Amino acid sequence: MGMWIGRNRKARICYGFDEIALVPGDVTINPNEVDTTFQIGDLKFKVPILASAMDGVVDVAFAIEMGKLGGIAVLNLEGVQTRYKNPAEVLDRISNSSKEEATQILQSIYTEPIQEDLIAARIREIKAAKVPAVVSSIPQRAERFGKIAQEAGADIFVIQSTVSTVRHLSKEYKTLDIGNFCSKMKIPVVIGNTVTYSATLELMACGPAGVLIGVGPGAACTTRGVLGLGVPQVTATADCAAARDEHHKRTGKYIPIITDGGMNKGGDICKAFACGADAVMIGSAFARTQEAPGKGFHWGMATPHSNLPRGTRIKVGVTGSLKQILFGPANLDDGSQNLMGALTTCMGSVGASTIRELQRTEIIIAPSIKSEGKLFQTVQGVGMGK
Amino acid sequence: MGMWIGRNRKARICYGFDEIALVPGDVTINPNEVDTTFQIGDLKFKVPILASAMDGVVDVAFAIEMGKLGGIAVLNLEGVQTRYKNPAEVLDRISNSSKEEATQILQSIYTEPIQEDLIAARIREIKAAKVPAVVSSIPQRAERFGKIAQEAGADIFVIQSTVSTVRHLSKEYKTLDIGNFCSKMKIPVVIGNTVTYSATLELMACGPAGVLIGVGPGAACTTRGVLGLGVPQVTATADCAAARDEHHKRTGKYIPIITDGGMNKGGDICKAFACGADAVMIGSAFARTQEAPGKGFHWGMATPHSNLPRGTRIKVGVTGSLKQILFGPANLDDGSQNLMGALTTCMGSVGASTIRELQRTEIIIAPSIKSEGKLFQTVQGVGMGK
Amino acid sequence: MGMWIGRNRKARICYGFDEIALVPGDVTINPNEVDTTFQIGDLKFKVPILASAMDGVVDVAFAIEMGKLGGIAVLNLEGVQTRYKNPAEVLDRISNSSKEEATQILQSIYTEPIQEDLIAARIREIKAAKVPAVVSSIPQRAERFGKIAQEAGADIFVIQSTVSTVRHLSKEYKTLDIGNFCSKMKIPVVIGNTVTYSATLELMACGPAGVLIGVGPGAACTTRGVLGLGVPQVTATADCAAARDEHHKRTGKYIPIITDGGMNKGGDICKAFACGADAVMIGSAFARTQEAPGKGFHWGMATPHSNLPRGTRIKVGVTGSLKQILFGPANLDDGSQNLMGALTTCMGSVGASTIRELQRTEIIIAPSIKSEGKLFQTVQGVGMGK
Amino acid sequence: MGMWIGRNRKARICYGFDEIALVPGDVTINPNEVDTTFQIGDLKFKVPILASAMDGVVDVAFAIEMGKLGGIAVLNLEGVQTRYKNPAEVLDRISNSSKEEATQILQSIYTEPIQEDLIAARIREIKAAKVPAVVSSIPQRAERFGKIAQEAGADIFVIQSTVSTVRHLSKEYKTLDIGNFCSKMKIPVVIGNTVTYSATLELMACGPAGVLIGVGPGAACTTRGVLGLGVPQVTATADCAAARDEHHKRTGKYIPIITDGGMNKGGDICKAFACGADAVMIGSAFARTQEAPGKGFHWGMATPHSNLPRGTRIKVGVTGSLKQILFGPANLDDGSQNLMGALTTCMGSVGASTIRELQRTEIIIAPSIKSEGKLFQTVQGVGMGK
Repeated sequence: MGMWIGRNRKARICYGFDEIALVPGDVTINPNEVDTTFQIGDLKFKVPILASAMDGVVDVAFAIEMGKLGGIAVLNLEGVQTRYKNPAEVLDRISNSSKEEATQILQSIYTEPIQEDLIAARIREIKAAKVPAVVSSIPQRAERFGKIAQEAGADIFVIQSTVSTVRHLSKEYKTLDIGNFCSKMKIPVVIGNTVTYSATLELMACGPAGVLIGVGPGAACTTRGVLGLGVPQVTATADCAAARDEHHKRTGKYIPIITDGGMNKGGDICKAFACGADAVMIGSAFARTQEAPGKGFHWGMATPHSNLPRGTRIKVGVTGSLKQILFGPANLDDGSQNLMGALTTCMGSVGASTIRELQRTEIIIAPSIKSEGKLFQTVQGVGMGK
Repeated sequence: MGMWIGRNRKARICYGFDEIALVPGDVTINPNEVDTTFQIGDLKFKVPILASAMDGVVDVAFAIEMGKLGGIAVLNLEGVQTRYKNPAEVLDRISNSSKEEATQILQSIYTEPIQEDLIAARIREIKAAKVPAVVSSIPQRAERFGKIAQEAGADIFVIQSTVSTVRHLSKEYKTLDIGNFCSKMKIPVVIGNTVTYSATLELMACGPAGVLIGVGPGAACTTRGVLGLGVPQVTATADCAAARDEHHKRTGKYIPIITDGGMNKGGDICKAFACGADAVMIGSAFARTQEAPGKGFHWGMATPHSNLPRGTRIKVGVTGSLKQILFGPANLDDGSQNLMGALTTCMGSVGASTIRELQRTEIIIAPSIKSEGKLFQTVQGVGMGK
Repeated sequence: MGMWIGRNRKARICYGFDEIALVPGDVTINPNEVDTTFQIGDLKFKVPILASAMDGVVDVAFAIEMGKLGGIAVLNLEGVQTRYKNPAEVLDRISNSSKEEATQILQSIYTEPIQEDLIAARIREIKAAKVPAVVSSIPQRAERFGKIAQEAGADIFVIQSTVSTVRHLSKEYKTLDIGNFCSKMKIPVVIGNTVTYSATLELMACGPAGVLIGVGPGAACTTRGVLGLGVPQVTATADCAAARDEHHKRTGKYIPIITDGGMNKGGDICKAFACGADAVMIGSAFARTQEAPGKGFHWGMATPHSNLPRGTRIKVGVTGSLKQILFGPANLDDGSQNLMGALTTCMGSVGASTIRELQRTEIIIAPSIKSEGKLFQTVQGVGMGK
Repeated sequence: MGMWIGRNRKARICYGFDEIALVPGDVTINPNEVDTTFQIGDLKFKVPILASAMDGVVDVAFAIEMGKLGGIAVLNLEGVQTRYKNPAEVLDRISNSSKEEATQILQSIYTEPIQEDLIAARIREIKAAKVPAVVSSIPQRAERFGKIAQEAGADIFVIQSTVSTVRHLSKEYKTLDIGNFCSKMKIPVVIGNTVTYSATLELMACGPAGVLIGVGPGAACTTRGVLGLGVPQVTATADCAAARDEHHKRTGKYIPIITDGGMNKGGDICKAFACGADAVMIGSAFARTQEAPGKGFHWGMATPHSNLPRGTRIKVGVTGSLKQILFGPANLDDGSQNLMGALTTCMGSVGASTIRELQRTEIIIAPSIKSEGKLFQTVQGVGMGK
């Protein structure tokens, strides 16, 4: 297993979404009759899609709408929502800034300290709408923010950093004891990100309710360019799904994995599930909703990093309502709308009645996109019915 | 067989037309002396090419001209031809609409109900010209439309949906019993689309006269982007050809397969036959004929889908007469004209005197197109004779 | 050997110049001290490069200059040089025509019949300059033109068509008996094109003095697009070189192979030799010389084909004198000038003192060009000396 | 090992930086606590990065600043610094020339003879700032310049040509005896470039203090286009690292290798170390510093080559100070700034506490960049902390 890339040096070939496709089944199912339920801890969601903890995507209003539609939105406890009492004004400054100013303005905005009382306030605003409140922080602040969030009534707590491991070494600062934290918290804890079988097994042994998969997903990812680091999502998801299944076999506990990042289209989401995901986490597609606080702009939480920024503010535009992005009708044909329609149609076509069945559907390695074929192939769809 | 794409997860590598090429033979044949006959049921055609059941491609006049030239045009029974007494007016609206309006106008035009009396009328108009009438519907309407078409004198009935399987599950609606339908019909039934060995075997056991091959062919296909679904045509055709040969071995019945979609140039058609096709079905190349009702525009039947549209209206332009596209002379050098000339020249060059021999010619995997090489290589053709 | 591209269907992977690179040797040689001699029949040439039999490349004056510089130019006996007493006027019309008119004008110009007395005249004009005269025709006219050419004093006769085989089948016309022709001719006969081991062995058994290698070389080749036909030049050259070596082993006769087409840069020429070529044939690079009759335009002999044209008139521009293209100094850094300087420097770097040694140098498969890397890598050259 | 590229012809697959990625570790480390020390001879450097011996990158002032920051800058003894007493005026002419004039002006500037007294002068200017002086020449001038440099107080002498081998054959001129030169010199000698296991072993046997790795690195490299020559850096570095380890095992002497060229981003540098490099040599990234003498322009030492130029003058722009490029803060997010921050963050993420550990981290082969994925993936970075 692996190719020789040099004398005494082997490397595995890893795959991303663009390299694979799914195969129609011998049995097909009416898409209206498939089951897409996702369960984390005791909470069940009919939409197995999470909105990323990014400031251009999730604020209180977005989280409420997402909850009402059956999905999950993660509010970042270290973004503008907890740094500013009135984040709308700050978000306006970001969306109104020129391309040239953007990074500098972002860097300055994020130097404002986090106000801990705002953490509880945001959670209570979400809970007031009777939808689940899901919030996130980096490991260094998990102990402190986790306690506040739990007391404020949060339903799920997410610990997220570029790479999370059980064994983080530092003499400079005290590192988070993940196992201890998970057992101490009374609400489900989701942790990430990770991409390997072994690291996922170690994380799962700490007792989280879910694990986020994805480091430098997709080949154009900034993390991969800046640090050389990253595993494409097809391989990362399949490897971590194997760890989940192994953990399940050993302990009887099924800890779902959530593929995070690198999915651009409905088809990519379908593929993530086929690779073994229990749910997916998405940013950009939601940044394009009318409900998104970024007003058509999007930026990662590493963008305002003071010393080694990765990513930049990007104009994604506003293309429809959150409901439309999730359930259609699509007025774009590029796969960026009606994500749930795409998922159920795909499940019907491969004959998967549940996500668990979709996780075992046949995958092929198929040639990547050639521009010359675009014109002709775009119109080849036949069959107005399903 | 297959590559590891992740732990416990293997995937086959599949191929599209751009990845392969054909190899000249040790024997060559005068192109004028090769035999391209295609037989379906008892009908024989000297042009083994079908025009797709798309509204921008086939209307009554086109079907008549195609029949006279020795090929087959499939009239879609669910398009504008059966929804409107005077489809020309509707087609004008489509071709005159702006790029922005097109999808919306298409969506609105296709909400008009199908008038069943027009089904018979269209078929009789085609038959009046003494050429075969070939028509299509989706599985849900096959029972009803098949009966009408047969009574009106249709020669072949085509059942077509994105993915057709013998076992389609639904509690919501009654599914088509394909075997029962095929045995009940007195005219040949062609069914599709499918892409796998096993599904083709199951479909062939139902007794159709032909099977259409192609789901999400080509890498840029909308179905693949939106649903993640699709098998490139080289592999799909070879797999289904193997099913045809296996079915033939088991039952003595040779059921031809028709590769549908993903062919842009004469060379792609040649490759489809080399992969095992008995005939090919083509849309875009014919949408560019003077005879095509789309007047230089082209759209798939999934484009006006109300909830999850795939594909869009595309301007392909008008480049020549149907006769010219099929038999030349070509005034374009891109392989989009004189498709039969390309096919016979290719057969001559590889030394195949029949389509059956072409199906066994040597295929190579060859590097895909590099732009840098274009300038120099375009002019490298030598030898004015063949 | 070969990959499964579908059930019961295997295909070899073939390679083009863009996919490979050469490896520096453990020994290096002063480039001024390597030997590049190419021998065909009893004729020796210090420049192992032939100019293609194309009307935009070779006329009498070009052939004379090429001969003086030590190389070989092939004059096409079926182009404007033998159709028109004063071809300059006709060539002017081609170079002065607009892009839109070009194909039509070419088609009309090539309907003028060939004047046999011009064949002898052109050959005598070349011979008058005391350089070798090398001319070509298609197989159908070889018997007649070969005799005329030989009598007029031609030194080498080239028979060239897209695909040449010993066994060409036709009831319509009489086919050329290649073996008989070669033994009848008193001057060396070069024949092509071919790309396979077996066809090359059959051709060599007919007794030619050389064989041309290349059908649809390069991925963007028109023949490949229009007919689906073609083998990339790395594999074609290596396979036919193996046939040459086998023929040599069996008969003691060494029949050189000439790789024809698909070489854009000095590097591609070096690679062709490394794959086993004894010489290379090039069109476009020479079409850009001040001496070329095309005046910066270039077209293949299949371009004016009346029914199935392949290729088009292309503007390549004029970038330098023939001497400069062959020996430098290069004023462009893209590898299109000083081809012999590139060849000798490459031979020095891999430690090959002769073409025969270069044919055995190490080849690697190396990733194709990525645009992102261009900026930085273009400037990385270090070392002003050798 | 190797693929068949033709009959009787095999080739290894080689890899470049774009084809690979690094995998996060099961253990992670605080980036501030990793050790990046590079040792050559008895000299230790905390920045394992060398600035290339290019005239647009290194002059005396740059070398001094680089030395103060802990790295190494190589001054080319055959560039404008030793040809002109006042190189600033000449450099101005280069940066002020138009794109069209540039190559010609460069060619004319480099015809000025080298003034040997300037060699000693430049070295003394650098030494006056109490930082190491590192200088380079081609093999033909090494004997003469090496002696002058050593006497003037240089700390390291670099011999560099496109391809350096122990066995260079020439009757025309006397070749350098590398082993004799290394033993005669009292300061460490670095030699390059090379890319193969066997050539590296031979060079190391001559007793150099370091070896430069890289011939035609990257696919777009001019050397590869012009000469067909080159090995991608991943494979070249891994192969030569294996030679270093073998030499170490045999002799007990650890001779570091320096990967030179083809690194565009922080990520590429990280990957070079992961492939086995002890240090890296970089040009373009430093050409963009405020301190670089090229004032935003960059050219290779082969650019002004009179007969076979490779590369051209390129505008790279000025994006920050040398300190910023090396240590941040980055105001660009493309990986071209804060190279040391990228390196230490990568080491932390893979759990490597030293360069030697980084050399053994897991590498994967990952799909190359797809443009479609760029928009969405650029913003996917999550986690403001490390």
